[in-house]
Amino acid sequence: MSSLKLHGVVPPVVTPLTPDFHVDKPALRRVVRHLLDGGVHGLFVLGSTSECVFLNEFQRSEVLATIAQENNGQVPMVAGTMDPATDRVVEHARQARAAGVDGLVVTAPFYTRTSQAETIDHFRMVRDAVDLPILAYDLPVCVHTKLERPTLRTLYEDGVICALKDSSGDDGNMRMVMRDFAGRDDFSILTGSEIVCDYAMLGGAHGIVPGLGNVDPAGYVRLYDAARRGDWTAARAEQERLIALFQIVFQGVPQTSPNASGVGGFKTAMQLMGLIPHRHMSRPNKPLSDEQADRVKAILIQGGLL
Amino acid sequence: MSSLKLHGVVPPVVTPLTPDFHVDKPALRRVVRHLLDGGVHGLFVLGSTSECVFLNEFQRSEVLATIAQENNGQVPMVAGTMDPATDRVVEHARQARAAGVDGLVVTAPFYTRTSQAETIDHFRMVRDAVDLPILAYDLPVCVHTKLERPTLRTLYEDGVICALKDSSGDDGNMRMVMRDFAGRDDFSILTGSEIVCDYAMLGGAHGIVPGLGNVDPAGYVRLYDAARRGDWTAARAEQERLIALFQIVFQGVPQTSPNASGVGGFKTAMQLMGLIPHRHMSRPNKPLSDEQADRVKAILIQGGLL
Amino acid sequence: MSSLKLHGVVPPVVTPLTPDFHVDKPALRRVVRHLLDGGVHGLFVLGSTSECVFLNEFQRSEVLATIAQENNGQVPMVAGTMDPATDRVVEHARQARAAGVDGLVVTAPFYTRTSQAETIDHFRMVRDAVDLPILAYDLPVCVHTKLERPTLRTLYEDGVICALKDSSGDDGNMRMVMRDFAGRDDFSILTGSEIVCDYAMLGGAHGIVPGLGNVDPAGYVRLYDAARRGDWTAARAEQERLIALFQIVFQGVPQTSPNASGVGGFKTAMQLMGLIPHRHMSRPNKPLSDEQADRVKAILIQGGLL
Amino acid sequence: MSSLKLHGVVPPVVTPLTPDFHVDKPALRRVVRHLLDGGVHGLFVLGSTSECVFLNEFQRSEVLATIAQENNGQVPMVAGTMDPATDRVVEHARQARAAGVDGLVVTAPFYTRTSQAETIDHFRMVRDAVDLPILAYDLPVCVHTKLERPTLRTLYEDGVICALKDSSGDDGNMRMVMRDFAGRDDFSILTGSEIVCDYAMLGGAHGIVPGLGNVDPAGYVRLYDAARRGDWTAARAEQERLIALFQIVFQGVPQTSPNASGVGGFKTAMQLMGLIPHRHMSRPNKPLSDEQADRVKAILIQGGLL
Repeated sequence: MSSLKLHGVVPPVVTPLTPDFHVDKPALRRVVRHLLDGGVHGLFVLGSTSECVFLNEFQRSEVLATIAQENNGQVPMVAGTMDPATDRVVEHARQARAAGVDGLVVTAPFYTRTSQAETIDHFRMVRDAVDLPILAYDLPVCVHTKLERPTLRTLYEDGVICALKDSSGDDGNMRMVMRDFAGRDDFSILTGSEIVCDYAMLGGAHGIVPGLGNVDPAGYVRLYDAARRGDWTAARAEQERLIALFQIVFQGVPQTSPNASGVGGFKTAMQLMGLIPHRHMSRPNKPLSDEQADRVKAILIQGGLL
Repeated sequence: MSSLKLHGVVPPVVTPLTPDFHVDKPALRRVVRHLLDGGVHGLFVLGSTSECVFLNEFQRSEVLATIAQENNGQVPMVAGTMDPATDRVVEHARQARAAGVDGLVVTAPFYTRTSQAETIDHFRMVRDAVDLPILAYDLPVCVHTKLERPTLRTLYEDGVICALKDSSGDDGNMRMVMRDFAGRDDFSILTGSEIVCDYAMLGGAHGIVPGLGNVDPAGYVRLYDAARRGDWTAARAEQERLIALFQIVFQGVPQTSPNASGVGGFKTAMQLMGLIPHRHMSRPNKPLSDEQADRVKAILIQGGLL
Repeated sequence: MSSLKLHGVVPPVVTPLTPDFHVDKPALRRVVRHLLDGGVHGLFVLGSTSECVFLNEFQRSEVLATIAQENNGQVPMVAGTMDPATDRVVEHARQARAAGVDGLVVTAPFYTRTSQAETIDHFRMVRDAVDLPILAYDLPVCVHTKLERPTLRTLYEDGVICALKDSSGDDGNMRMVMRDFAGRDDFSILTGSEIVCDYAMLGGAHGIVPGLGNVDPAGYVRLYDAARRGDWTAARAEQERLIALFQIVFQGVPQTSPNASGVGGFKTAMQLMGLIPHRHMSRPNKPLSDEQADRVKAILIQGGLL
Repeated sequence: MSSLKLHGVVPPVVTPLTPDFHVDKPALRRVVRHLLDGGVHGLFVLGSTSECVFLNEFQRSEVLATIAQENNGQVPMVAGTMDPATDRVVEHARQARAAGVDGLVVTAPFYTRTSQAETIDHFRMVRDAVDLPILAYDLPVCVHTKLERPTLRTLYEDGVICALKDSSGDDGNMRMVMRDFAGRDDFSILTGSEIVCDYAMLGGAHGIVPGLGNVDPAGYVRLYDAARRGDWTAARAEQERLIALFQIVFQGVPQTSPNASGVGGFKTAMQLMGLIPHRHMSRPNKPLSDEQADRVKAILIQGGLL
C-alpha cells in the first residue's frame, strides 16, 4: 500500500472567495505561492480553515485543481474529505485522488453519532475505496467524536492510517499518543495548534498544521527549524511572537462566532497584506467589520507584518 | 409569502436500501403506503431517521421523487435539507422545491460552530433563495447549536419560519417556547420525541414527528386523536404501549452506536413486518445482528405487531 | 427497614437569612406556615433551593430544628444531606435523624467523579449508617453524575431507596424510569420541575418538588389535585399560570448566575409578599438589584399574588 | 498585604488512611519526609489528590497539623480550602491559617453554578476574611466553572491572588495566561499536569504540582532542574520516564472511577514502596484489587522504583 511521511509545516490553505462566493482562483494561486515562498513542507487542501464543509463538489474540485497546478509537485499535498458519512467521504476522496493529491485527511463521521467501532470501519472503508495514504484528523470540537488512543492504534496496525493531525486541544492525551507511537517511523503526528507548536515539537511531533501559517508561513518554518535543531530558546521566542500575532483571531467576537472570527481574522490579515482582495467567508459566517479589521491591522503592524 | 400549517402525525420516512446501498424505491413506496394507510397527516422526507446526511444528491433526489409520486398530494410533504452550511442547504432546498414539496426543514449549520446571529442569517438566506415555508428543526444532539427562544421568535416575526420541530429533549424549554407562541395560529410546534408525545400535546403542541411512526403509524394517530379530543387517559395508555414498542431502539447497544441502534431498530422491525427487504443502514453504521433482531422480534410480538 | 411513601407537593423550603448571614428563624417559621397553609403534602428541608451546600453544620442544624418545630409532625419532612462524599453525607444524615426527619435526600458524590458502581456503594453506605428511608436525588446539573436507570433499579431492589426526585430536566428518561417502576407501590417518583409538573403527573409521577412552591404553594396543590382527579384541562391551566409566575427566576440574568437569579427570584418574591424581610442569598451569590426586584414585582402583580 | 512566590515542585500530599478511615499520622509523616528528601520546593496540603473534599473538619485539621509539624518550615506550605461556597471556604481558610500555612488554594464554588462576577467576589471575600496569599486553582473537571483569563487578571490586579495552579488540561489557554502575566514577577503559574510539565516549563511556568510527585518526587525535581537550566533534552527524557510511571493511574479502570484509579494508583505504589501501610481511599472510592495492584507493581519495577 502507498504511504506518506509527512513532516514540517503543512498549513491548511485558506480559500479566497469572489464577491459572489465563487472560488477566487487567481487569489488562491497567490496564497499558494506565498506559502511555498515561506518554505512550507506540505499543503493541507480543503481543511477546516479552508471552509471545506461550506463548499460544494464543484468548488472543492476547483480548489484542488488550482492548488495542484500552482504547487506542481513542489511539496506533498493532502486533501480534506470532510462530510458527514462514509460514502460521501469516499466521493470526495475519489475527487481528490483524481486531482493528484498525495494523501487524504479523514475525520470521524459527524451529525450522526458514531461509535469507535463504526469510526474504525469508516476509515477502513475510505481506505479500501481509494488507496491513498490517510491522515486521521482528530477534531472533536467540530465532529464531536474523539479518535481514541486504541482506535488510532488499531487503524495504524491495520495499515489504514499513516499520520495524525491532532486538533483536539488535549495536549496531555496527544502526549500519550506520541508515546503509543514512539519508534514507529512510518507514522507522523502533527499538531493543529497555532500556539503550542513548540510544546508539540518538544514532545516529539513531526509537524505543524497552523491556520495562522497562511499569514506568516516563514514564522512557522523558523519555529519548526529551531525545534528540529534543538534550539528551544529560539523556538519559544518564535512561538511567542506568533502567539501575539494569533490575537487576530479574537477580533470578531462576540459579534461573530469563534469560527468566523478565526478564519475571518486570517482572511482579513491576508487582505491587508495584499494576498487576497476580499475577506468575507462562506455564508452564513459574518465578515469582520471595518473597525474589527482595523484592530487586525494594528496587530499586524505591531508584529512587523505590515 | 407561502405558508403551511402543519399538524398531526408527520413521521420522518425511513429510507430502505438495496444490498449495494442504493435507494430501494419499491420498498420506499411500500413504506409510504404503510404510513398513509396508518392515517398520518404529513410526511417528513429526508429527516435524520431517513439517514439524510448519508445520502448524496442523486439519492436525495430519488427519495424525494419516489415519495412525492407515491404520496401524490394526499398529505403535505416537508423535506429535510441538512448539510453543514448555507449554500449547500440552498442547493438541497432547490432540489426539494423542484420535487414539489410543501415546505422545507432546516437546522442550524453544523461542523462549523455558528452564533445565534449567524444562525438567524442562515435561515433567512435559505428562505430568500427558495420561497417555501420553513420548519425550524432544533436538534442540538446532532448539530450542537441550540435554536434559542429569541432566535425562534425573531425568525417567526420576520416571516422566515412557520413551524418548529423540537428534538432537543428539553421539554421544559419547549414548554416555554409554546408559551412564547401562544395564540399564534400561524405557527406550529411539533415534538420529535417518540415517548413523551402525550406530554407535548397536553402542553399545546400541534403535532408529532416520531421515527417509531414508521413501525406503528396508526398507534401515533390514535395517540394524537385521543389527545385532540381531550381523552388523556387514552392518550397516556397509547403512549405507554408505544414506549414498550420503543425498546426496539436499544437492542443494538453497546455494540453499535445509539444512532445505528435506533434507526437500525426501526428498519429491523419493518423488515420483520415485511415492509422492507433489508435492515442495513448507510455506511459506516453497523446493522443489527441476528440475535439483536430476534430481540426486536420479541418486542414486536409482545406489542401485537407481529 | 423503615419506609416512606411520598406524594403530593413537597417544596424545598427556602432559607431566609439575616443581614449578617445567619439563619433567620422567625422568617423561616413564617415560610413553613405559609407552605402548610398552602396545603403542601411534605417539606423538603435543606434542598438546593434552601442553599444547603452554602450552610455549615450549625446552620443546617438550626434549619432542621426550626422547621421540625414549626411543622410539628403535620406533614412528612425529608432532609437534604448534600456534600461531596460519603462520610460527610453520613454526618449530615445523623444530624437530620436527630432532628426527627422522616427521610433523607441523597445525591451522587460531587467534586470527585464517581462511577455508577461507587455511586451505588455511596447510597448503600449512607443507608447502612442511618436507617432512614432515602429519596435519591438526580441532579446532574449540580453533581455532574447521572443516576442511571440500572442504578436506580439496583438501589430499589436492594431496599436502599424508596423514592426518586428527578431534577435532570430529561423528561424522556424520567418517563422510562416511571415505566421501570410501574406497579411498584413502594416507590415514589417526584419531579423537580416547576414548569412541566402536569406532564410528570400525566406520566404517573407521585409528586412535585417545586422551588416556586415557596411563592405559591396553593397553586401547586391545585395543580396536583386537578391532575389526581384527572382534570387535565384544569391542571394545564394552573401549570400555565405558574409558568407565567416562573418568569421571576430570569430577572437577575445575565448579571447574576442562573442559580442566584433563580433562588434570588424566589426570595425577592417572598420579600415582596411580606414573608421574609431580606432577599439576599448566601455568599458569593449576588442579590437581585432594586430594578430587577421591580420586574419580579410586576410579575407578581400580573399573577395576582400582590 | 502578604505575598508568596511559589516555584518548583509542590506536590499535593497524599492522605494515608487507617483501616477505619482515620488519618494515618505516622504514615503521613513518612510521606512528608519522602517528599522533602526528594527535594520538593513546597507542599500543597489538602489538594484534590489529598482527598480534601472527603475529609471532615477534624480530619483536615489533623492533616494540616501533622504536615506542618513534620515540615517544620523547611519549605512553603499552601493549603486547599475546597468546599462548595464562600463561607465554608472561609472557615477552612481560618483553620489553615491557624495551622501556620503560607498560603491558601482556592477554587471557584461548586455544586452551585457561579458566574465569573460571583467567582471574583468569592475570591475577594476569602482574601478579605483571611489575609493570606491565595493561589487560584483552575479545576473545571471538578468544579465545572472555568477561571477565565479576565477573571484571573482582575483578581491579580486587585491584589487578591498571587499564583495560579492550572489543572484545566487546556494547555493552549494556559499559554495565553502565561502571556497575560509575562513580566509580572509577583505572579506564579504552576501546572497541575503530571505528563506535560516540560511543556509548561518551556512556556514559562514557574512550577509543577504533580500528584505523581508523591511516588517519585526526585524525578520531578530532576525534570524541573533540567528545565530551569535550559537542558530540554534532559527535561524531556525525565518527562517521558515519568509518563511511563504515570500509567499506574489507569490500572483501576474501568472497574473504578478515574478519580479512584488515579489516587488509588498513587496510594498503591506508595504502599508497595513501603511508605504507607494501606492503599484504600475515602468512601465510596473503590480500592485497587490485588490483581490491579500487581499491574502497578510491574510498572514500578519497570521504572526502577522497586
